[in-house]
Amino acid sequence: MSGNRGVVYVGPGKVEVQNIPFPELVNPQGRKIGHGVILKVLSTNICGSDQHMVRGRTTAPAGLVLGHEITGEVVEVGADVETMKVGDLVSVPFNVACGRCRTCIEQNTGVCLSVNPSRAGGAYGYVDMGGWIGGQAEYVMVPYADFNLLKFPDRDQALAKIKDLTCLSDILPTGYHGAVMAGVGPGKTVYVAGAGPVGMAAAASARLLGAAVVIVGDMNEARLAHARAVGFETVDLSQDATLGEQIAAILGTPEVDCAVDAVGFEARGHGHSGSQHEAPATVLNSLMEVTKVAGKIGIPGLYVTDDPGAVDEAAKRGSLSVRFGLGWAKAHSFHTGQTPVMRYNHQLMQAILWNRINIADVVNVELISLDDAPKGYAQFDAGVAKKYVIDPHNQLR
Amino acid sequence: MSGNRGVVYVGPGKVEVQNIPFPELVNPQGRKIGHGVILKVLSTNICGSDQHMVRGRTTAPAGLVLGHEITGEVVEVGADVETMKVGDLVSVPFNVACGRCRTCIEQNTGVCLSVNPSRAGGAYGYVDMGGWIGGQAEYVMVPYADFNLLKFPDRDQALAKIKDLTCLSDILPTGYHGAVMAGVGPGKTVYVAGAGPVGMAAAASARLLGAAVVIVGDMNEARLAHARAVGFETVDLSQDATLGEQIAAILGTPEVDCAVDAVGFEARGHGHSGSQHEAPATVLNSLMEVTKVAGKIGIPGLYVTDDPGAVDEAAKRGSLSVRFGLGWAKAHSFHTGQTPVMRYNHQLMQAILWNRINIADVVNVELISLDDAPKGYAQFDAGVAKKYVIDPHNQLR
Amino acid sequence: MSGNRGVVYVGPGKVEVQNIPFPELVNPQGRKIGHGVILKVLSTNICGSDQHMVRGRTTAPAGLVLGHEITGEVVEVGADVETMKVGDLVSVPFNVACGRCRTCIEQNTGVCLSVNPSRAGGAYGYVDMGGWIGGQAEYVMVPYADFNLLKFPDRDQALAKIKDLTCLSDILPTGYHGAVMAGVGPGKTVYVAGAGPVGMAAAASARLLGAAVVIVGDMNEARLAHARAVGFETVDLSQDATLGEQIAAILGTPEVDCAVDAVGFEARGHGHSGSQHEAPATVLNSLMEVTKVAGKIGIPGLYVTDDPGAVDEAAKRGSLSVRFGLGWAKAHSFHTGQTPVMRYNHQLMQAILWNRINIADVVNVELISLDDAPKGYAQFDAGVAKKYVIDPHNQLR
Amino acid sequence: MSGNRGVVYVGPGKVEVQNIPFPELVNPQGRKIGHGVILKVLSTNICGSDQHMVRGRTTAPAGLVLGHEITGEVVEVGADVETMKVGDLVSVPFNVACGRCRTCIEQNTGVCLSVNPSRAGGAYGYVDMGGWIGGQAEYVMVPYADFNLLKFPDRDQALAKIKDLTCLSDILPTGYHGAVMAGVGPGKTVYVAGAGPVGMAAAASARLLGAAVVIVGDMNEARLAHARAVGFETVDLSQDATLGEQIAAILGTPEVDCAVDAVGFEARGHGHSGSQHEAPATVLNSLMEVTKVAGKIGIPGLYVTDDPGAVDEAAKRGSLSVRFGLGWAKAHSFHTGQTPVMRYNHQLMQAILWNRINIADVVNVELISLDDAPKGYAQFDAGVAKKYVIDPHNQLR
Repeated sequence: MSGNRGVVYVGPGKVEVQNIPFPELVNPQGRKIGHGVILKVLSTNICGSDQHMVRGRTTAPAGLVLGHEITGEVVEVGADVETMKVGDLVSVPFNVACGRCRTCIEQNTGVCLSVNPSRAGGAYGYVDMGGWIGGQAEYVMVPYADFNLLKFPDRDQALAKIKDLTCLSDILPTGYHGAVMAGVGPGKTVYVAGAGPVGMAAAASARLLGAAVVIVGDMNEARLAHARAVGFETVDLSQDATLGEQIAAILGTPEVDCAVDAVGFEARGHGHSGSQHEAPATVLNSLMEVTKVAGKIGIPGLYVTDDPGAVDEAAKRGSLSVRFGLGWAKAHSFHTGQTPVMRYNHQLMQAILWNRINIADVVNVELISLDDAPKGYAQFDAGVAKKYVIDPHNQLR
Repeated sequence: MSGNRGVVYVGPGKVEVQNIPFPELVNPQGRKIGHGVILKVLSTNICGSDQHMVRGRTTAPAGLVLGHEITGEVVEVGADVETMKVGDLVSVPFNVACGRCRTCIEQNTGVCLSVNPSRAGGAYGYVDMGGWIGGQAEYVMVPYADFNLLKFPDRDQALAKIKDLTCLSDILPTGYHGAVMAGVGPGKTVYVAGAGPVGMAAAASARLLGAAVVIVGDMNEARLAHARAVGFETVDLSQDATLGEQIAAILGTPEVDCAVDAVGFEARGHGHSGSQHEAPATVLNSLMEVTKVAGKIGIPGLYVTDDPGAVDEAAKRGSLSVRFGLGWAKAHSFHTGQTPVMRYNHQLMQAILWNRINIADVVNVELISLDDAPKGYAQFDAGVAKKYVIDPHNQLR
Repeated sequence: MSGNRGVVYVGPGKVEVQNIPFPELVNPQGRKIGHGVILKVLSTNICGSDQHMVRGRTTAPAGLVLGHEITGEVVEVGADVETMKVGDLVSVPFNVACGRCRTCIEQNTGVCLSVNPSRAGGAYGYVDMGGWIGGQAEYVMVPYADFNLLKFPDRDQALAKIKDLTCLSDILPTGYHGAVMAGVGPGKTVYVAGAGPVGMAAAASARLLGAAVVIVGDMNEARLAHARAVGFETVDLSQDATLGEQIAAILGTPEVDCAVDAVGFEARGHGHSGSQHEAPATVLNSLMEVTKVAGKIGIPGLYVTDDPGAVDEAAKRGSLSVRFGLGWAKAHSFHTGQTPVMRYNHQLMQAILWNRINIADVVNVELISLDDAPKGYAQFDAGVAKKYVIDPHNQLR
Repeated sequence: MSGNRGVVYVGPGKVEVQNIPFPELVNPQGRKIGHGVILKVLSTNICGSDQHMVRGRTTAPAGLVLGHEITGEVVEVGADVETMKVGDLVSVPFNVACGRCRTCIEQNTGVCLSVNPSRAGGAYGYVDMGGWIGGQAEYVMVPYADFNLLKFPDRDQALAKIKDLTCLSDILPTGYHGAVMAGVGPGKTVYVAGAGPVGMAAAASARLLGAAVVIVGDMNEARLAHARAVGFETVDLSQDATLGEQIAAILGTPEVDCAVDAVGFEARGHGHSGSQHEAPATVLNSLMEVTKVAGKIGIPGLYVTDDPGAVDEAAKRGSLSVRFGLGWAKAHSFHTGQTPVMRYNHQLMQAILWNRINIADVVNVELISLDDAPKGYAQFDAGVAKKYVIDPHNQLR
């Protein structure tokens, strides 16, 4: 079999493309697994959550192969694989899930109980997520393949829509989960905090779900301009007018039916309120202000349990100063957690294949080579309004 | 106050515009009601279910004032009305509902327990539905007005979109209910039996709900052509190819995720299977064939308890020969009943006002004068692909 | 008409029974209301949330008539009332709700939009809840009576079970709402924080909902002993063993399926963690620790928007230091707000009448006279394991 | 390796205990499967649906090994099995399910798409259900073991409660599914048609779910007496009083909130209406009469697609004369299909282990030897109020 190359975390602020081992049908504990397959990676996206590791704010060890947003072609199947065969094109949910534990059976594949010895939930190429090797590479191994993989029905059609389909592994279901958790449906008014890829995917999902109007908020003018260009209303959070006032200018009322926090822990670096350690709660607190009574707040934006480099003791433990009394008075509910991709990816694939959602345009996909991955990391970190997708075998451009 | 004129059922096959009394704030039992309002009717639609009465297939008495799809302007309010005022433009749900009984509290306003002494559920201008006077007239009384009425937020905007908003009283929520009951959502494949107004509204609703593809079936070529013109896939049930075969030609598989029966008891006159009295079951049975396992079948199409003029004893009692074993083997569920309009009309109004659904185009609304109502009845009965909307005060054209 | 007497808030720490006006069919804005009724109060309970006002921690004005947990007999009906008649025995939901606004229509009667000019949601005898006069009195007025009132089907049966039925106005639906929001159902393991009346009602509700095992936690030994006496498992939070350890001793695992916060803002005075202003978050944070991944946390315990007398600026604004990152990592959801009593009270009445729930025993109802109400307030405030129910006409004992 | 013995269908009316091959880790298509285990059968129940085959009303071939209700001990594991180990005691859901196809992912394991080449859904020891060998035997093979099997947490506890736990493989989840589909919850009034094991399990489930009152109907006096003995209300369908009249005598109203059809196709032999081929529709039709408006009808009772021996052409195709118009007028929904056992068995196991449901008493479990299985079949067919459970290794009595 051939060699392999992948994007490797080297140290704070630095990733490199290195030679890495060709994958084997073995799990991180060294057990041979008949249920796995090996994929030739067709496309693999850089994610905002990769940036946390690259910025050195986690305990990710040097040498970790990055990448959890993977689309590929099956090149080898384990003995126990029954429905996948060599040549199939597939989307890989970023959550590694066994399909056999209680939470997987209940469709909560984001918190699978068996793929990560240290906590619930696994992912490829991510610190503390079970040790599964990342897929920003030429080849990658996927366990529990019959369960995990989403097969595209037609090869030519899939290749023609690859820039959209590559969003099925994480970004689109993550935004969609946010919208669903927020109770978005036909005729609803929706506010999405954050115009990065997760926010834009949430906005596109809200539109697919029938929302009457979708408003996206951010402080990054390039991202807001892109949001407007693809058809959403926007509010500029760097303005003096309050969020409620800007919403009222659009809707005639300062409140929305549904709200999505697509910022999360990442708000931290944005200087949202001018205060570093209070930023995350500012987003949550502002959503309580602008969400109607009995409304739901969907929170796909990542919040962490521990942040050793934070500025105070509360933030180090992942504690936020939340204006909980306000939410309680308005009978709000708050919905959190990693997206269980498999709950949504089949139907979202159908929406893509039937031209009901133009997710590649909305998140502004740009294909780059594997060798350009480090450059992509740097530009994405700088806040460009793009979603970088690596084409490891240079076959898509 | 001025006089009143309305569309009156005179006898089988015959309706006339007659002078009728100006409405009073009194219920059919003669009790004065402080919770009622009187509306100047802005628009009022002719419905397929009106045709049952006009064809003489019911026990509707001569003299009955027709019309349950009503949009109007408040011209008088009762003493107990708190939120409606003279000049408000409002949509009237076709189901009369008290908002005070157990089923209304649970949002099942289609089967209100208190507005009809003879059975659950009331409607304006309909036989056996409580004796509420119909609204194909210049003026009409609406009880429980604070509860029942949906106020449009802006008068000018409402008048500009009146051809769409007039669909909120019945046809759009009825189609939408069918789609919701069938489990339609993003990425789903949907088959709608029947390309009349209910079917077209179900199709438009399925699209709003995010369906990947919507297929409409009928035998009326004009209606199918209109369905294609507004963007739906179609199957022609007068062809030799089976329904499953025609679906497979579109989807690559003979089954859909979700199915809607928008034909119901009306199938009777269409000669669907060549057999008069078995027609209704043919639709249900065909839906079981083409719906995937664990699928839901939404049935907004009307089925009746009694049909004195039917051809056999079973049909007279509303019994159908249903291939229930097939549905059971596929773990189907079947969802029936009058639409509870109030569960949906606010969100659908929002979808209209924000240009998310073009229901007037989809059902092909045509405004006519009150005097042309009898002609409208006749043409609609002949199967034209239109939805006739009466403009009683000649102020909309 | 006769006179009236009621329990009046006089100043911090002090309530008195005073002569008060006999109720009129007039709303707090002075409008005559045909939809109201006047009740002779049969029973009316002292609630933990009344204590906030009595302790002087709110802006409640002197002279406020207390009482929002009311059961009564109809003695006068307004002109627009259609289904209630003199002599009916009824339960009054503590939330005043109009039954006509959008949130009421959607069964969110806890945040009715029209009964309180200052915010969403109304209640009887409560500061900032719309000015509706309280029902710890001989007589009280209930607006929107057809909508709000739950009629008992049989007078003798109702009187025989009055100690249970009196719990339908607030305490039982509030606990039940907590259990439902937490996702309790057959076979679930449940932890309820707080053994006061709300916690005990949540525990009883969890048992009714089929929970496998219900564990109640508190630091009050008398309340824990009562909880054990009526069949629940308990953990003593004043012990050194952690909550997780104590749960593991019962279940064999330190986590439960479902968790209910029945403490809320009231934790403040209990010294739960030894630190006054952090107490509320301690409960929420401990629930995140002991709730399984993808679990729901139901929060019927009251959290407030403003607390002028609090010890720091954050607490004055109702902000808590919540370990949100932990909840996010476990994909928790958080469900808050006043209970919409009408969503549950009919079915809970049925459960009482058919002997499926012994709520009076579980919350330990004790009937007292109206004149003993001040004594009841004092003893309840001291933490006795009882629920005091006032019998204003001395007809129940 | 040891030998094996099992219950074999020999011909109409006749079963025998025969020597059969010891199971292998091979699927019915002859493929070796690493995901399977071999169980030593601890208990295995005779099911009403086995009787259809034994009565000769199906195309079951002579030689078929019967049995789909299986509890056992793992004695051999395949190479790909990760969570089951030799010595584990487990419950086997009667539906064979792969855990990898779209319907399994969505928890519809009753209609798995991959375990049966001829239609959706598989089962052990059943005609047309995929060719999986039955478990009324000493040993049996279970595929997809990590997914399918429910492990009991403690061996001694499991053996002590084996008469209850043996009901988890089919009868209890089947009854529970009926109750859930019918919308049973706290305070609901419930009617269950049929006092056989499915009906009794539905009744027990309704009680666990918090129903206010559960009424069971049948014509078999022994079964009705048993139903009363375990705490349910009953109606005797052989009486002159109508079902509605008998319900009204219990509830004060002729309608219930929720209805369960636990008779299905089996009604055929009971002579319910005196007319053989109309019997099944009689049950459905009677449920529409006695179910409240907007109610749900759960139908766990089996209806078949084809019945070659039926008395008329409609019945041969599984067609019933259903009074559909009545259901439509009452806005009923109808919920059918094989129970997806895995959606419920974990929580029901917890309910058993914590003494919340006494299912063995309710269905009247009686343990018999393998050699007595033919006698058990005969007695059960005669309508005895018992559930026979085979103890193949004579270790439970």
